[in-house]
Amino acid sequence: MSEHTHPNPALHALRERWSVIADLQQSVSLLTWDARTYLGSAGHQRRARGIATLTRLRHEHLADGELGDLLADLEGTDLVGDDAALVRECRREVHRAQRLPGALVARAAQQFALAEHRWARARSDDDFASFAPVLRENFVIAREFAQALAPDTHAYDALHDQYERDSTAVDVERLFAPVRTELRDLSSEIAARGPRDDSVLRQRFDRALQARFATEVIEAFGFDPARGRLDATTHPFATGITRDDVRITTRYADDDLRVALFSTMHEAGHGIYEQYLPEAYAGTPLGGTVSLGVHESQSRLFENLIGRSLPFWEWAFDRLRAVFPHQLAGVDGPTFHRAINIVTPSFIRVEADEVTYHLHVMLRFELEQALLDGSLDVDDLPGAWNERSLAYLDVAPPDDRRGCLQDVHWAAGLIGYFPTYTIGTLLSVQLWEALRRDLGDVDGAIRRGEFSGIRTWLTERVHEQGRRATPHELTLAATGAPLSAAPFLRYVREKYGALYEL
Amino acid sequence: MSEHTHPNPALHALRERWSVIADLQQSVSLLTWDARTYLGSAGHQRRARGIATLTRLRHEHLADGELGDLLADLEGTDLVGDDAALVRECRREVHRAQRLPGALVARAAQQFALAEHRWARARSDDDFASFAPVLRENFVIAREFAQALAPDTHAYDALHDQYERDSTAVDVERLFAPVRTELRDLSSEIAARGPRDDSVLRQRFDRALQARFATEVIEAFGFDPARGRLDATTHPFATGITRDDVRITTRYADDDLRVALFSTMHEAGHGIYEQYLPEAYAGTPLGGTVSLGVHESQSRLFENLIGRSLPFWEWAFDRLRAVFPHQLAGVDGPTFHRAINIVTPSFIRVEADEVTYHLHVMLRFELEQALLDGSLDVDDLPGAWNERSLAYLDVAPPDDRRGCLQDVHWAAGLIGYFPTYTIGTLLSVQLWEALRRDLGDVDGAIRRGEFSGIRTWLTERVHEQGRRATPHELTLAATGAPLSAAPFLRYVREKYGALYEL
Repeated sequence: MSEHTHPNPALHALRERWSVIADLQQSVSLLTWDARTYLGSAGHQRRARGIATLTRLRHEHLADGELGDLLADLEGTDLVGDDAALVRECRREVHRAQRLPGALVARAAQQFALAEHRWARARSDDDFASFAPVLRENFVIAREFAQALAPDTHAYDALHDQYERDSTAVDVERLFAPVRTELRDLSSEIAARGPRDDSVLRQRFDRALQARFATEVIEAFGFDPARGRLDATTHPFATGITRDDVRITTRYADDDLRVALFSTMHEAGHGIYEQYLPEAYAGTPLGGTVSLGVHESQSRLFENLIGRSLPFWEWAFDRLRAVFPHQLAGVDGPTFHRAINIVTPSFIRVEADEVTYHLHVMLRFELEQALLDGSLDVDDLPGAWNERSLAYLDVAPPDDRRGCLQDVHWAAGLIGYFPTYTIGTLLSVQLWEALRRDLGDVDGAIRRGEFSGIRTWLTERVHEQGRRATPHELTLAATGAPLSAAPFLRYVREKYGALYEL
Repeated sequence: MSEHTHPNPALHALRERWSVIADLQQSVSLLTWDARTYLGSAGHQRRARGIATLTRLRHEHLADGELGDLLADLEGTDLVGDDAALVRECRREVHRAQRLPGALVARAAQQFALAEHRWARARSDDDFASFAPVLRENFVIAREFAQALAPDTHAYDALHDQYERDSTAVDVERLFAPVRTELRDLSSEIAARGPRDDSVLRQRFDRALQARFATEVIEAFGFDPARGRLDATTHPFATGITRDDVRITTRYADDDLRVALFSTMHEAGHGIYEQYLPEAYAGTPLGGTVSLGVHESQSRLFENLIGRSLPFWEWAFDRLRAVFPHQLAGVDGPTFHRAINIVTPSFIRVEADEVTYHLHVMLRFELEQALLDGSLDVDDLPGAWNERSLAYLDVAPPDDRRGCLQDVHWAAGLIGYFPTYTIGTLLSVQLWEALRRDLGDVDGAIRRGEFSGIRTWLTERVHEQGRRATPHELTLAATGAPLSAAPFLRYVREKYGALYEL
């Protein structure tokens, strides 16, 4: 069944064993994708059980003693290069699995799958009370995970490390502090300029036509439709079921062109990362994405640094107007570009502008730490959310749908995940500066609708690296410096300073 | 993870073990459904590997020695009723698995999954030559299966028994002989009356509107949309992923109203069977469908005995005309009923009328026996197909798309399967006669759009039986007689005698 034969029989045996783990993962990913897209309302109970069983089987294969012995033997030999990296990354996953009891893994998988379904219902009914007991149990399980993974560290750090390796809450806070200050200053200065008119974006836009334009854009970016799809869901996401089957979703609003357009570009950035991972290591840990921060750097780069830029709209606007000639009559590219870059405090993170976005992330980062250490009770979450929203964004959501029920993450058991959105955004700008140094006239290429140079640069520095390097090593090799907030802070000050004549 | 606790600890252990097998099956079913509906063109290689791995894991769980020991112990105890039936049906599946080598099971799963994808391409390109080597390998694997399953019987019987338990090619031929004679006579008599006008059905019909009407009909039949879905595929099919997640597909023709409408009703009949299987035994062999013949009796009953009947169109026609007012202006129910019951030899089995349909099945039954025993070489299949089509149906397909490439079955490894279509049709009429005896004014209920009495009768006699009885026992209990062609022959002679004034 392996795609790969290897002169080293132990390495060959490792690949064979791992192909079973990859196929179980492929199944869990499809069962999960399908639950979010097409499964009927009464199918979720049995689906959650199926996801739990397959997750447990995958875990048993990972924690299997023979696999552990095989890896221990391989570590004793003098492997170099990719072979050594493959063994190192396999051991890392196996060690993680060995620390987790199978029963906990299965219980968590079932709970999180059902919780996500309960969340979708609670969100659509704006009924936090029905969801609170589910969310409480999610945090109970998260604490058990943290305890099993790293009993001697802070629970938050144990969980966060699963998404952002080698990063802790202290590291996150160190990165966030200057960003918080600057973004609050910047958004105050912008607010002082008074509101701007976004009515061009707030008209009726047919969904099928929105989908057609978004598809044209992401295929130009490099998203390969033969190896992926675009669907609609409550919460947009991307998932690599295999390297040749990468699925992204978006959310349509009939009365706001931004919602689907930018979330599609965002998820396409994630999808392109998954589609261009190293082919020779597909299905192995070495062939996987390296961290969620790096993942997010790809989505934010396509969404913001390309998709919200003036050169992009100099290419794209005529195309968009051809799709919506009535709505966009009498508008030009620069006007449209100003409209999509309006900065204004809002309720919904995934629809936020580049400036206020990170204040949403910080709010969540703080609340999830408090929920995890017990200093905030689940029942008090809506109040705490709204209070902090007022403090950071000067707006309090009028309901929980647009407040603490808006995001799927905690429902799906993804606790310690949110900071990766800001980490990834900082990295996206740092990569963008390096890319522009290397490639020269990037704006000119974008104005001509040529994205392959950008995609190729990212593939060589990021996608094709898989997990050969850590996120820190990858950042250093691609940009010449460790991760820093400085490029992002320069970028937002320069871009929004110009747009708002600050 | 089990949904069921049982006072007998050995039975409880059996249910626990079987829930893992059911969850693996759920995954294989979804991976397969998705490959046929939404998977991108470049995703099939890795998908086939995933299907093969999961199928092999399921097989390993089935053939596991501890499960065999548990069942042997349980058979030694004095179980009665459903407990005894559960153990009997579990042993039957385990014994089948024990006879099959795991490597063969995995090789077959991978080959058939890829072959199906190659078939879809060959069919759309009308390129039999590219598919011939794939089909040859399918028959090689089928022979190996037959040899492993039942080395002392004819290969065809060993394969056919997987779909229609306790049935052999000789049994099939005994049922088919009088049907063949009568249907060839009847279609000749009808042909002598000259062609009839079907132009009302051959207009432009919007697909979304076709889907809307078909959905209204199948939900009235009893198909539960909370526990299932309808999608579009090259070849219509139904699959019970779980009892609460039953998926059917159809194929739309823009220029022929019959294609999607009757295939949707047909697949809904299959879907309703899966949705009303015994809840308490969901995911176990006792909670499964009993044979493909019985399965097909449900699809043919809804498609033909209801869907092509005059009382049905007395209810449905006004509804259909409300959806297509322009195309159906000036047409009435009886005229429409005559149009959808036109008998005329054609190329495509799934679009054939009730009279000529079975001649398509018999052609395939004969050819698959010849391909299996080697008396027909795969390269000679197109010629043999066209020759036999001319002999049985007086028409030869103008290309292989409409000839030997039209059906998915052999591509998907389903060899020995075709006779179940006619077996099921015979049973559908026998059940229909019994149902009408029991329920009284069935036509009146249909004229009022009331199908719940019919659905409930079928659920009690067929769906909820699961595999408590064999197909023969089920037929006897539901209809008072063993399976016979006589009710079907009476039905077609009476219906088409009247329609064609013979």
